[in-house]
Amino acid sequence: MRAPDQAPPNDLSDIAAELLTRLRQRHPRVHCLTNAVAQHFTANVLLAIGATPSMTMSPVEVEHFVGGSAALLINLGTLDDERRRSMTLAADAAIAANIPWVLDPVKVDRSDFRAVFARTLLAKGPRALRLNGGEFVALAGAPAERNAIRAFALKQSATIAMTAETDIVSDGSAVIEIHNGHPLMTQVTAMGCAESAVLAACLAVEANALIAASAALLLFNIAGEIAAERARGPGSFSVEILDALFNLDAAALRQRARVSS
Amino acid sequence: MRAPDQAPPNDLSDIAAELLTRLRQRHPRVHCLTNAVAQHFTANVLLAIGATPSMTMSPVEVEHFVGGSAALLINLGTLDDERRRSMTLAADAAIAANIPWVLDPVKVDRSDFRAVFARTLLAKGPRALRLNGGEFVALAGAPAERNAIRAFALKQSATIAMTAETDIVSDGSAVIEIHNGHPLMTQVTAMGCAESAVLAACLAVEANALIAASAALLLFNIAGEIAAERARGPGSFSVEILDALFNLDAAALRQRARVSS
Amino acid sequence: MRAPDQAPPNDLSDIAAELLTRLRQRHPRVHCLTNAVAQHFTANVLLAIGATPSMTMSPVEVEHFVGGSAALLINLGTLDDERRRSMTLAADAAIAANIPWVLDPVKVDRSDFRAVFARTLLAKGPRALRLNGGEFVALAGAPAERNAIRAFALKQSATIAMTAETDIVSDGSAVIEIHNGHPLMTQVTAMGCAESAVLAACLAVEANALIAASAALLLFNIAGEIAAERARGPGSFSVEILDALFNLDAAALRQRARVSS
Repeated sequence: MRAPDQAPPNDLSDIAAELLTRLRQRHPRVHCLTNAVAQHFTANVLLAIGATPSMTMSPVEVEHFVGGSAALLINLGTLDDERRRSMTLAADAAIAANIPWVLDPVKVDRSDFRAVFARTLLAKGPRALRLNGGEFVALAGAPAERNAIRAFALKQSATIAMTAETDIVSDGSAVIEIHNGHPLMTQVTAMGCAESAVLAACLAVEANALIAASAALLLFNIAGEIAAERARGPGSFSVEILDALFNLDAAALRQRARVSS
Repeated sequence: MRAPDQAPPNDLSDIAAELLTRLRQRHPRVHCLTNAVAQHFTANVLLAIGATPSMTMSPVEVEHFVGGSAALLINLGTLDDERRRSMTLAADAAIAANIPWVLDPVKVDRSDFRAVFARTLLAKGPRALRLNGGEFVALAGAPAERNAIRAFALKQSATIAMTAETDIVSDGSAVIEIHNGHPLMTQVTAMGCAESAVLAACLAVEANALIAASAALLLFNIAGEIAAERARGPGSFSVEILDALFNLDAAALRQRARVSS
Repeated sequence: MRAPDQAPPNDLSDIAAELLTRLRQRHPRVHCLTNAVAQHFTANVLLAIGATPSMTMSPVEVEHFVGGSAALLINLGTLDDERRRSMTLAADAAIAANIPWVLDPVKVDRSDFRAVFARTLLAKGPRALRLNGGEFVALAGAPAERNAIRAFALKQSATIAMTAETDIVSDGSAVIEIHNGHPLMTQVTAMGCAESAVLAACLAVEANALIAASAALLLFNIAGEIAAERARGPGSFSVEILDALFNLDAAALRQRARVSS
């Protein structure tokens, strides 16, 4: 296989399989400052792909936990005072130790206060952002289209992963589109939050953020497709996606991947 | 179909089906200040019936989120300081914007402190309360029987939904009894909390609180019956009830409803 | 059956069945100050074995909830300021009322700050500790082996339950080893946390902490084995273990128990 940083999108399924192998061998620690609704599901998603989650958010010890981790996720979901203080400390600790971190600016389109806070974190330079269309518009002040996404990635020097029916990932230079996924993924809470955690885990084992982000979204969406084939509704779907992530292999990834650039 | 506010209990299954259709078409935003144990399941229940949940509880932004919602739930489950401050702000914001809100005074019979706090919220005038028998007794100082429930509803100018083997709903004038449900619903945490969220969602699409509350309880209990038929224990039950809510239709509601007045 | 405090390990499956019967008859209240990731699953595990969970953590009311409970769990998982204050209040309230309490020093090996805090709680005299090997080493300053575990139990006057592929339980005098369990239990978050809650529940119905702890671990691990036989991955596993705990009976316990002393 070619080195990940030279790989074209056609090979993304093989790269995703390779990252999954690394995760299952290395069990990288991923510290998550994520919202109260998503914590349990996010921890289970990380364990299902081989990563080792931690979630404590006390300002007293968060820097220590971040310092011992291979990646960090900051998700703004439920933005209470203590979480907010910890997020700033955690981002600074990640930057100081050169640990990759992901920002998920949840519902930034619903509150000016969190838009301001998200911009403060964004200015610190996360390696990647994962967000939906509405959140992109609120943060970038531009439509959630590939050119605007590439421009925003370039401006922020960050990889942007915008998830929708078609996901668009850009590092400011290349653009990768992922067409996998299933509508049931929007009927279960914390799916986007967990996807951001998968992105953080992939950054823990792959330095190229464009590759890590694209592979993470591909993995997660293909697991979602497999889960949807077995589910009878959103309850069984969230069980099945954990099983699908746990059992995911190169053959399923290669067979199902629908990627364009 | 007759207008909901003129409908007798016999038609409650049709009305419940109609409210479900409205939820699935309008996806109303329901803001929930609910306890840490119930947040994830509650969000999934709301998504399963078509509503759009949000759960942030920071005092800095809670009023903004409430202002953008079609209904509010306040559940006292885990009553930490920040949640408590946010609950007061949220109730006031809902009142100012004429947004219907539901109070679920969880475990008010276990702590004098929260009984006092619950009465403070009650004095602000929630559109509806959902509680169990012990909580009703603690709050109303009367037995959990239909006459006392009607009297308390009249006194508080609120619809009271008391859930037990037979649920009793009253707006101070009419009384509706719902005989659906299954014992497994008491073997899984957060079921009552999620039911209160369904009530809030129904208030988002139906102005008559007696109808909204009765339909919510009917929906939820019938989904519980369907789930119990497929479950082998409380683990599979909580998966199945999400699938059952997602797939619930007018035929199942009509066939199973056991309602009296 | 012989009295639990005279029973040799061979009879542990019968004793575990007897404790399960007590739990299902008495529904003891178990108050849990546990981490945000584990709260929902822990509450469902407690309900599945017959116990009645409560989880509020406000310093204003935690002592009142502890005072009305038959056992207390303190789990350090997500150690925010308010939880930490409540933990100290709760431990003191349990001691004052002679209510058995369990300490689960989660990730004490990852943070000096929480190691110091764990030692403060430990000095107050919990009835039992449940921890993994790394946490034992950090707290005891000795290898996670049976002699060191017995010595630490003796020194602390507490029952130590160290869980690993083989679980080791000691009250400072006897040592019991439990060989049940399944690797999938480490692929799902909050399993150890929930196991500690089962230990607290068993202490609510059995005064002998060695017996209560050994029976709790046996129950939980055998439910894990049954669940693993039905699961296709970690998602279905966490559903199946709740069903297995709910349906667990003396025959399955007797047939599967692998205990040595």
